[in-house]
Amino acid sequence: MAKYNIATIYGDGIGPEVARSSVRVLKNALGSDALHFEELPGGAEHYVDSGEVLPEDTFTACRDMDAILHGAAGLPGVTYEDGTEVGNDLHLLLRFKLDLYANMRPVKLLKGVTSPLAAFRDGGAIDYIIVRENTEGLYASRGAGVVLRGEIASDSLIVTRKGTERVARFALNVARKRNGAPRDGVSRLTVCDKANILRSFAFFRGICDEVSTDFPDVEIDYAYADAMTVHLVKKPDFYDVIVAENMFGDIISDLGAVTVGGMGVSPSGEIGDNHALFQGAHGSAPDIAGQDGASPVATILSSALMLDWLGERHDDTNLVEGANRIRNAVNAVLSAGEFIPRDLGGSARCSEMTEAICRALD
Amino acid sequence: MAKYNIATIYGDGIGPEVARSSVRVLKNALGSDALHFEELPGGAEHYVDSGEVLPEDTFTACRDMDAILHGAAGLPGVTYEDGTEVGNDLHLLLRFKLDLYANMRPVKLLKGVTSPLAAFRDGGAIDYIIVRENTEGLYASRGAGVVLRGEIASDSLIVTRKGTERVARFALNVARKRNGAPRDGVSRLTVCDKANILRSFAFFRGICDEVSTDFPDVEIDYAYADAMTVHLVKKPDFYDVIVAENMFGDIISDLGAVTVGGMGVSPSGEIGDNHALFQGAHGSAPDIAGQDGASPVATILSSALMLDWLGERHDDTNLVEGANRIRNAVNAVLSAGEFIPRDLGGSARCSEMTEAICRALD
Ligand SMILES: CC(C)[C@H](C(=O)O)[C@@H](O)C(=O)O
Ligand SMILES: CC(C)[C@H](C(=O)O)[C@@H](O)C(=O)O
Repeated sequence: MAKYNIATIYGDGIGPEVARSSVRVLKNALGSDALHFEELPGGAEHYVDSGEVLPEDTFTACRDMDAILHGAAGLPGVTYEDGTEVGNDLHLLLRFKLDLYANMRPVKLLKGVTSPLAAFRDGGAIDYIIVRENTEGLYASRGAGVVLRGEIASDSLIVTRKGTERVARFALNVARKRNGAPRDGVSRLTVCDKANILRSFAFFRGICDEVSTDFPDVEIDYAYADAMTVHLVKKPDFYDVIVAENMFGDIISDLGAVTVGGMGVSPSGEIGDNHALFQGAHGSAPDIAGQDGASPVATILSSALMLDWLGERHDDTNLVEGANRIRNAVNAVLSAGEFIPRDLGGSARCSEMTEAICRALD
Repeated sequence: MAKYNIATIYGDGIGPEVARSSVRVLKNALGSDALHFEELPGGAEHYVDSGEVLPEDTFTACRDMDAILHGAAGLPGVTYEDGTEVGNDLHLLLRFKLDLYANMRPVKLLKGVTSPLAAFRDGGAIDYIIVRENTEGLYASRGAGVVLRGEIASDSLIVTRKGTERVARFALNVARKRNGAPRDGVSRLTVCDKANILRSFAFFRGICDEVSTDFPDVEIDYAYADAMTVHLVKKPDFYDVIVAENMFGDIISDLGAVTVGGMGVSPSGEIGDNHALFQGAHGSAPDIAGQDGASPVATILSSALMLDWLGERHDDTNLVEGANRIRNAVNAVLSAGEFIPRDLGGSARCSEMTEAICRALD
């Protein structure tokens, strides 16, 4: 019997291809019995068919199983009751219902991938992690803002002490664990905000400061969100871990991703105290769905994050080793250059990438 | 007697050097009688000395004169009554008091300047304008958010119909005037928002759509703020004019700037119906102040924007020609490569750059 149950939602567009690819790599990395994958319906297409984006049984399984592996959800033109495209998006619903407060987005330039930044083309130097607060900030208002008499619209940016403390602690622990990786032996947490303009951001910064006193081994650094974009282009090699409010985190995560090759190589883990969801940083890309043309790399790297998280939580070194073997295999394939996915300028199909990565597992 | 009075605030740090440099270039470009520069006190140092950041007389002059030329204001550690570093910043005060609702940030890669983006190093292809809404959005709350019992902080994002209509119309007019420059003959306005998540952004987008029906010659395009960062790195050559809410505009303006060489070459104009303030996009950089090491390029290019605005407003072709001569001179100096400011990797001093640009005026 499998030790861990993985709630697996394929979702829309390229979701099924890339999620199946990850399942295959996970089975090859750990043996077919380590994980049980429970396939669950959900997403925009399911909503069109059934009127439900996140069926009750899917939600229950996500809540009760050990982790969630997700392909991608959402289809252009499918809007929900609240009139927005994502207000009731599967992924957002799970994020909030399961209180997945830390959205972890590693930004790492892999060998074999070319950065669009001229000074960092050769790889290696870009290696940091963005921790986006994932449950409040501007997203507290998602779909719930007001429009008064068609004249004035308003949304609220909400920063709570509890919400900030827990994400700051999460980020500081990530920094502590990296132990000064990659470069200079200094663990550093950069707080990205606009504390010079808004009180809620000054509050956010102040709480990060407070929590950081428990982490004397982690240096604290600050960047305003506007200046942050400059730094991530000019000196990405300076950064170790960055923590940001939800909307700022959303924005800088995508900027980070493009500097290391884009969404197609960017994993994401949305982590709470008791639940976590893993999926590539990209969307469902329905325009290329079903053609075996998507890159499974981001989802595969996300599934390695899943093993990190499960392994640490259950003190299971088998999983942690599996995560490292998956990352090594992805690195080996990309740096060998024979199989390169289309979004990185190559021509390898999703299935070819998957097989190459499975072969590279040692 | 000079035809136009320019309220000139040198401000802090490198402000005086770069503003004096621009005054010199303006005098050389137009003849010494065209503009009268009224030097006015204000800024963080003035606040420390006198308790006033924006003296009443300075404000009155800014309000009553034809345009405002500003060096830079603000000093680290100087905080105002509201406890923030910029809540009462000279520049923010003028922005709000004079209702300078359109913050225009041209993003153009000049010959002789190297982009950090590998695919755009050779110049020319990046040439767009960001129009940032400058009086509402998240900045409606500047310094005025609330912190409840030390537990919950909140700020409001406010988008009004009137505020959005006027900035959308401004941006559409900019696009119309560019007439498809630089590339494909298509005038395009990209609305940057997060309409998929927040009602206020959906409202913003809807009003931009409405106003755009008066501009059938301008194509409408949309980008979510997170994806926008990816586009500005991957395909900056696609963009013509971008309009964004205040905070998003702040963030993407800096990202745009770094792709074309940074704040030191990035001009800015903050424009209302009856007043306008021009200054470089950079800050006061007190660490390099008084050493003749700052680049005057951003301020000089901002003063060309000032001439554009004044010239159009007063139907004065002399000013418009002056603006073009200044831009041509800056381009000539940078592309010749003999004088390159320090922030672009050269060693030319502020005074040397200024003289070289004056000599290059034809
Ligand atoms: C699709 C959208 C709801 C989502 C977000 O804004 O959080 C996406 O951009 C992300 O980063 O997961
Ligand atoms: C200094 C600060 C108040 C300002 C802003 O946030 O608007 C700056 O970033 C700008 O872009 O002018």
